[in-house]
Amino acid sequence: MAIVLGPNRYGKAEVRVARVTRTTATDHELCDLDVSVSLSGDLADTHLRGDNARVVPTDTMRAVVYAFAQDRPLPAIEEFGLRLARHFVDAHASIDTARVRLLEYPWVRIAGTHGPHPHAWTRAAGVRRAGVVRGPEGVEVCSGLADVSVLKSTGSEFHGFSTDRYTTLAPTRDRILATTVRAGWRHRRDGAAPADWDASFRAARDTLLRTFAETHSLSLQQTLYTMGEAVLAEQEHLAEVRLTLPNHHHVEVDLSPFGQPNPGEVYQVTDRPYGLIEGTVRRGDAAPALADLPWE
Amino acid sequence: MAIVLGPNRYGKAEVRVARVTRTTATDHELCDLDVSVSLSGDLADTHLRGDNARVVPTDTMRAVVYAFAQDRPLPAIEEFGLRLARHFVDAHASIDTARVRLLEYPWVRIAGTHGPHPHAWTRAAGVRRAGVVRGPEGVEVCSGLADVSVLKSTGSEFHGFSTDRYTTLAPTRDRILATTVRAGWRHRRDGAAPADWDASFRAARDTLLRTFAETHSLSLQQTLYTMGEAVLAEQEHLAEVRLTLPNHHHVEVDLSPFGQPNPGEVYQVTDRPYGLIEGTVRRGDAAPALADLPWE
Amino acid sequence: MAIVLGPNRYGKAEVRVARVTRTTATDHELCDLDVSVSLSGDLADTHLRGDNARVVPTDTMRAVVYAFAQDRPLPAIEEFGLRLARHFVDAHASIDTARVRLLEYPWVRIAGTHGPHPHAWTRAAGVRRAGVVRGPEGVEVCSGLADVSVLKSTGSEFHGFSTDRYTTLAPTRDRILATTVRAGWRHRRDGAAPADWDASFRAARDTLLRTFAETHSLSLQQTLYTMGEAVLAEQEHLAEVRLTLPNHHHVEVDLSPFGQPNPGEVYQVTDRPYGLIEGTVRRGDAAPALADLPWE
Amino acid sequence: MAIVLGPNRYGKAEVRVARVTRTTATDHELCDLDVSVSLSGDLADTHLRGDNARVVPTDTMRAVVYAFAQDRPLPAIEEFGLRLARHFVDAHASIDTARVRLLEYPWVRIAGTHGPHPHAWTRAAGVRRAGVVRGPEGVEVCSGLADVSVLKSTGSEFHGFSTDRYTTLAPTRDRILATTVRAGWRHRRDGAAPADWDASFRAARDTLLRTFAETHSLSLQQTLYTMGEAVLAEQEHLAEVRLTLPNHHHVEVDLSPFGQPNPGEVYQVTDRPYGLIEGTVRRGDAAPALADLPWE
Repeated sequence: MAIVLGPNRYGKAEVRVARVTRTTATDHELCDLDVSVSLSGDLADTHLRGDNARVVPTDTMRAVVYAFAQDRPLPAIEEFGLRLARHFVDAHASIDTARVRLLEYPWVRIAGTHGPHPHAWTRAAGVRRAGVVRGPEGVEVCSGLADVSVLKSTGSEFHGFSTDRYTTLAPTRDRILATTVRAGWRHRRDGAAPADWDASFRAARDTLLRTFAETHSLSLQQTLYTMGEAVLAEQEHLAEVRLTLPNHHHVEVDLSPFGQPNPGEVYQVTDRPYGLIEGTVRRGDAAPALADLPWE
Repeated sequence: MAIVLGPNRYGKAEVRVARVTRTTATDHELCDLDVSVSLSGDLADTHLRGDNARVVPTDTMRAVVYAFAQDRPLPAIEEFGLRLARHFVDAHASIDTARVRLLEYPWVRIAGTHGPHPHAWTRAAGVRRAGVVRGPEGVEVCSGLADVSVLKSTGSEFHGFSTDRYTTLAPTRDRILATTVRAGWRHRRDGAAPADWDASFRAARDTLLRTFAETHSLSLQQTLYTMGEAVLAEQEHLAEVRLTLPNHHHVEVDLSPFGQPNPGEVYQVTDRPYGLIEGTVRRGDAAPALADLPWE
Repeated sequence: MAIVLGPNRYGKAEVRVARVTRTTATDHELCDLDVSVSLSGDLADTHLRGDNARVVPTDTMRAVVYAFAQDRPLPAIEEFGLRLARHFVDAHASIDTARVRLLEYPWVRIAGTHGPHPHAWTRAAGVRRAGVVRGPEGVEVCSGLADVSVLKSTGSEFHGFSTDRYTTLAPTRDRILATTVRAGWRHRRDGAAPADWDASFRAARDTLLRTFAETHSLSLQQTLYTMGEAVLAEQEHLAEVRLTLPNHHHVEVDLSPFGQPNPGEVYQVTDRPYGLIEGTVRRGDAAPALADLPWE
Repeated sequence: MAIVLGPNRYGKAEVRVARVTRTTATDHELCDLDVSVSLSGDLADTHLRGDNARVVPTDTMRAVVYAFAQDRPLPAIEEFGLRLARHFVDAHASIDTARVRLLEYPWVRIAGTHGPHPHAWTRAAGVRRAGVVRGPEGVEVCSGLADVSVLKSTGSEFHGFSTDRYTTLAPTRDRILATTVRAGWRHRRDGAAPADWDASFRAARDTLLRTFAETHSLSLQQTLYTMGEAVLAEQEHLAEVRLTLPNHHHVEVDLSPFGQPNPGEVYQVTDRPYGLIEGTVRRGDAAPALADLPWE
């Protein structure tokens, strides 16, 4: 049977751009982004014959990211991604789908002698993310975060699980629960976009953290579901939340050989292996996500 | 509208296992693996109510990986993944789908005074991969490799591409083409498995490298397609090849300010941004891949 | 001429320990450490003949770190390092020098419904460090930080530099200055230790950041010196500050091909190569650091 | 007491350069380097007053690396480092010391249909290193390697060690010994340089690996010493060998809960903590290394 070209796409990944907005000569805003663009469409000619007439060079994608980064005012990353995706689909007849993935690194103002400094920052933890796809089936946007590590030192149990001949794990009524949150939430295509992308992001982030902290956990799966549900309950325009939660195991160290009891005080922090809990919480009536949405 | 649990799975990731086979007291074989298991099924209870009765602890998955790693003889990673997946689906009524992702790190014998050493090795470059899914729709296997960096110092052109107001890239008739190959190839579900997984892997790897080297490239897309096509052409039991090829740009350094022409001799090696070419080559009559197949 | 054993040491690196202090059942403190111990002394026998009678196994060092982590109250990392170093030198006649390197990962309380949560945290940016050496020449302590990224979007110039036939850099009166601070400050051996290690650390960190922000920079070297000088000027018990400052170049993107001027708005963030400025600021009368002090 | 400037240096780090030598249009050689330059001298003015008249911009160092990379023939990295160091000290009166650190990534020819391909390569494992210092006290060169992982599955014991109340480690007569070799060897300043840097490197690398394999190990310290001694014994012009050997612990998995004995077959590969053995082997009559030699 014939060998054929299957699904394909190409783009420029990890375009690093810092955008300074000079409100006055010394009073600035800073936006620090990592933008990846990926396009697909009628690209058989370059794959099969090396004919590049329909290929927009990835170098051009890089240039567009930089040129559009000068938009005034620089919008939220979701809106910036929408502008970029629209440009590529509109400007090139051979391209039917554009995917844009954006990371934003948070910076906070350094505390100066007279308050927050007007043009000096230090990096804060965590990454804000957004993904946009524009294609024949429509336009879809997800927001999210990554690299947000959280830990609870009590209020987490794990017992009553299925056992078999390979079970050695002891049930526990009190353990450390620690994870690094990777979350994405998808905005409804049939509804209005949030009036304020930034406020929507902050609300979702704060809810995820607060819910992690305040949920008495019987399993990391339960915590995951509760976190996702809380975000959806607060923001009507969201259709679905995806969470990826590695379980960073903290093991109570056996200090009894040294004559020391260890009542939940000293823990070994392990690297590998780790549990990995992945799940989705969604509205029952939400349309499925577009296949090309860059959640990752 | 009601908020509901969507797709979910959980498992143990990156179980690191070294398996020594002692042919004699001093004559050994070595296998060095990183195994990740992920299960899904009827897991609503733990998500919604923290009831873990149907949850196989990820610690148990870890134990099973180690216990099965003692199989004699230790099979190829594809077969090892099949055994693990079968175990989890068969042993637990609540689990309907098991995904296993395996990485194998290659070691070669150290050259000793009297030839290859019988029990001492050094790590070689690259990683062999396999992915297995066993679920209600059947069983599917993919093989692959990652972290295989390749470079051609000529025999690569890029011109005739689409231009617009954001184009500044110059066409070129001679450039360095460099990438780090990530490839996966899917075995047909309707056919016989390869008689020898190891031989199949080596053939695919050698073909990918040789084809990269010997294809006169007009675009990395063309190289990608040619590489995938060559693997399918040689192995009838394969249905599809997926390739992810970052384009590691090498830029000729402008030495003219120092009075030195630079006729394709000195290149700046760049990190970011990079092109990213992703594509699939498949048989026209092959059934689509199962949604849960762990290609990555 | 004879071949002989030269300087040597050995230890356990990267012991990861989380210490929970339970003020009440639900009101906790958290300390998250990475501790490395390295010992030296009369270790010729194991090197030359494989006689381990004087070797304290690195596994024992790991055990001691965990056992001592239960000290109540858990002290600042500098004091914790001093206790560990004293133990190894005192307990083992063959060991004359102990080096301890400690990293502390900062966690901040998650904002809950009713204020900062009593037992849930999220990781903040940056790492606190300490190094201790105890040997025949005495005891010495350094404190420090790492992975603290800072950026100024104006208030930085670079011009008047030496030029030659290889110079292509243009002088600038306004550039982004960005670095990731790695700093260590050494406490005087002849003076009193700070009354409060934590307060001393916070003061030094805040001064480093504030000075970076408020110094009008003519070179990163000048900024480095000013930062170190400010720390020494405020804390009499410090002898020396070491700073390692990579210069993360931010390059104004040329948008003129697209008809856009770029007045200090859009910058390409580069990875490699980077400038690397390393320097020491010290009191003129301070004794030199002990050779074995683990600054890194 | 006055605060003063202490030791300092600055440079350009991680200049990535690929050098293609075109023997014919299609028959090439490839050299892939990472070069870091660091200079010191009379640099007080820039630190204390921001006066850069004596500062050679790091951008100029980058340019020199690229310009010199065109030397024909391109020499071994040790010689390339010597040329760079000489340039900076000779060309700039304010600079008295130049340090150059070089990494070379090995590439091997891809196996083509008709033998090794003339212009296509794949990356091999490991990194070759060199360090050069040129200063008032003379010129010194070290060679080395890094990222070379090795493993022995038998022929390694560890027992007879010192025990105390914190000892829980069991002695063993048969364990896996695994490490990632980082080695540097220093060439005598008073002797002739090796006639062939490349041959010297290959001999040292092969000896390190062969000696690791063929030494029956009673401790990793003993293995370290034996490896260093073997290199010195073979190459008269070497003064000293430094080895940094992390001990990658492989732990026999307890399979007895599953009714499986585990006679040295299945091992857990651990990440952290790890043993860390550092030592030097040297000729008794060799002058000490220059303080500024970039071994790392």
